[in-house]
Amino acid sequence: MDKQITCLAGGVGAARFLQGLVNIVPGKQITVIVNTGDDIQLHGLHISPDLDIVTYTLAGIVNEEKGWGIRGDTFNCLKMLKKYTHETWFNLGDRDLATHIYRSQLLNNGHSLSEATAKISRALQLRVKVLPMTNDKFETKIVTNAGTIHFQEYLVKRRAKDKVKGVVFAGASEAQPAPGVIDAISKADAVIVCPSNPVVSIGTILALENVRVALRETSAKIIAVSPIVGGAPIKGPADKLMRGLGLEVSAYSVARIYEDFLDFFVLDQADVAEKERIEQLGLKTAVTNTIMKSLSDKIQLARTVVELISP
Amino acid sequence: MDKQITCLAGGVGAARFLQGLVNIVPGKQITVIVNTGDDIQLHGLHISPDLDIVTYTLAGIVNEEKGWGIRGDTFNCLKMLKKYTHETWFNLGDRDLATHIYRSQLLNNGHSLSEATAKISRALQLRVKVLPMTNDKFETKIVTNAGTIHFQEYLVKRRAKDKVKGVVFAGASEAQPAPGVIDAISKADAVIVCPSNPVVSIGTILALENVRVALRETSAKIIAVSPIVGGAPIKGPADKLMRGLGLEVSAYSVARIYEDFLDFFVLDQADVAEKERIEQLGLKTAVTNTIMKSLSDKIQLARTVVELISP
Repeated sequence: MDKQITCLAGGVGAARFLQGLVNIVPGKQITVIVNTGDDIQLHGLHISPDLDIVTYTLAGIVNEEKGWGIRGDTFNCLKMLKKYTHETWFNLGDRDLATHIYRSQLLNNGHSLSEATAKISRALQLRVKVLPMTNDKFETKIVTNAGTIHFQEYLVKRRAKDKVKGVVFAGASEAQPAPGVIDAISKADAVIVCPSNPVVSIGTILALENVRVALRETSAKIIAVSPIVGGAPIKGPADKLMRGLGLEVSAYSVARIYEDFLDFFVLDQADVAEKERIEQLGLKTAVTNTIMKSLSDKIQLARTVVELISP
Repeated sequence: MDKQITCLAGGVGAARFLQGLVNIVPGKQITVIVNTGDDIQLHGLHISPDLDIVTYTLAGIVNEEKGWGIRGDTFNCLKMLKKYTHETWFNLGDRDLATHIYRSQLLNNGHSLSEATAKISRALQLRVKVLPMTNDKFETKIVTNAGTIHFQEYLVKRRAKDKVKGVVFAGASEAQPAPGVIDAISKADAVIVCPSNPVVSIGTILALENVRVALRETSAKIIAVSPIVGGAPIKGPADKLMRGLGLEVSAYSVARIYEDFLDFFVLDQADVAEKERIEQLGLKTAVTNTIMKSLSDKIQLARTVVELISP
């Protein structure tokens, strides 16, 4: 297969899928547009959780057990930081910190997040092209009973325990897609919406000006992989967020979020009962195992998706 | 002894002396004014080598073998940074980095170096008051055949191998002493000039507006401990720098740099032959062992100095 594939990605679920994809498609044919709504400033450093998860995974250095961070990393800097400040709820490994320090320095010196991401990708010898969704300020905030808080604060600091009343994308109306994002959608042969949170990972990308239009208008085949299996996400708080927005937590509900631009929806065999409902939206479907535990699970899922692109 | 003692300090030599001093004088009676001419921005972080050496030593966490850094520290962040950039000649331990990250964030948020230093001291439970010599930009640069370079670049990156043609204190004419510095000299019962490099550690403090005048005018007894033993420094490039400025490398030569404000000069027994020459400058002398290998060496030297204050 020599087609150009563009993926929309959040964090762990997307990274696992991409690990399978690079096993069957050469990296240079793949562009990944990554959510930056989770980005956060901590200790004066610019942290891009989803970019790092995707980058570390594709570089083969991710801590596979956790899904984030670098394998075998130590946490000595964070231990010492705890002596200085109580704001140490976000886990930062020592090796991982090098990425945040390097990226922050580039941004402070006037480079864009795109440029920083390209330099980091090159240093880690990635063959896949990784693009941040935007270089502009864009912050996902969760409206809870405890107030409107940054997504990382909701997820990591407060362990997703607050009742979700809404989601705000601060800056979304001014934020422009990063250079290359619209082209990557328009000129691709296929677009894959990775199995990521439809609200805070993919929803952020879709909220950027012109992205949804580009997805509707591209001649690329567009395939989404369901992040919901049996009425629950594999990882993360997608259920709580969907429910908080009044959405049904189901594969069907995800398909509805994407239906205006989607061609194919890949759902788990656990959700086969939803197949018909999804097809009634005008979408084609494929049913397979979408739970990615082993590398062969990941490759099998990627293969199912790639076969929809080039039958 | 209940007198207030103010020390002028550089890095390792001063820190070792202070380790002895706090064993015989309560920390709350001691103020240390520390050289910041070596401070440098690396990876977007503000690094204060001498402040950290003094602070870590007084906190009991210094790597005693090296004289700098934190005992048992790891270097995993730096290893990862090497993948991103070649500018990794300055050793940064993982725990040590926490200090640089915390300080840099405070400075970026508008705090002064004094405030950052006080917060770090408090977090590390120091009883001694540590003051940076200035909150303003002040950079020690070494004029060499290879150009005029930052002191750390001369010392660490290029291993003090370049021929020294001069020393420049960039910013010295505008830099003001940090809050508390002049008072600490004027109101002290004694001022101790620690065994530090007279050119780039103590010379920087002396170059600040009003410091030399305050030293001349204070009623405090002023005692300097020679950093030169037998015609060479115990550690560091003081010999190269002194020679580069056309100065003789000797205890006598150090005494001459300080003679306008000094009462006592403490020299090593190896330099007893210089005693008379130094006394001819109008200074009183004490001859003792100034080489601080063990804690008892440090305490003995501190005791000799304290006895000059309160005979």
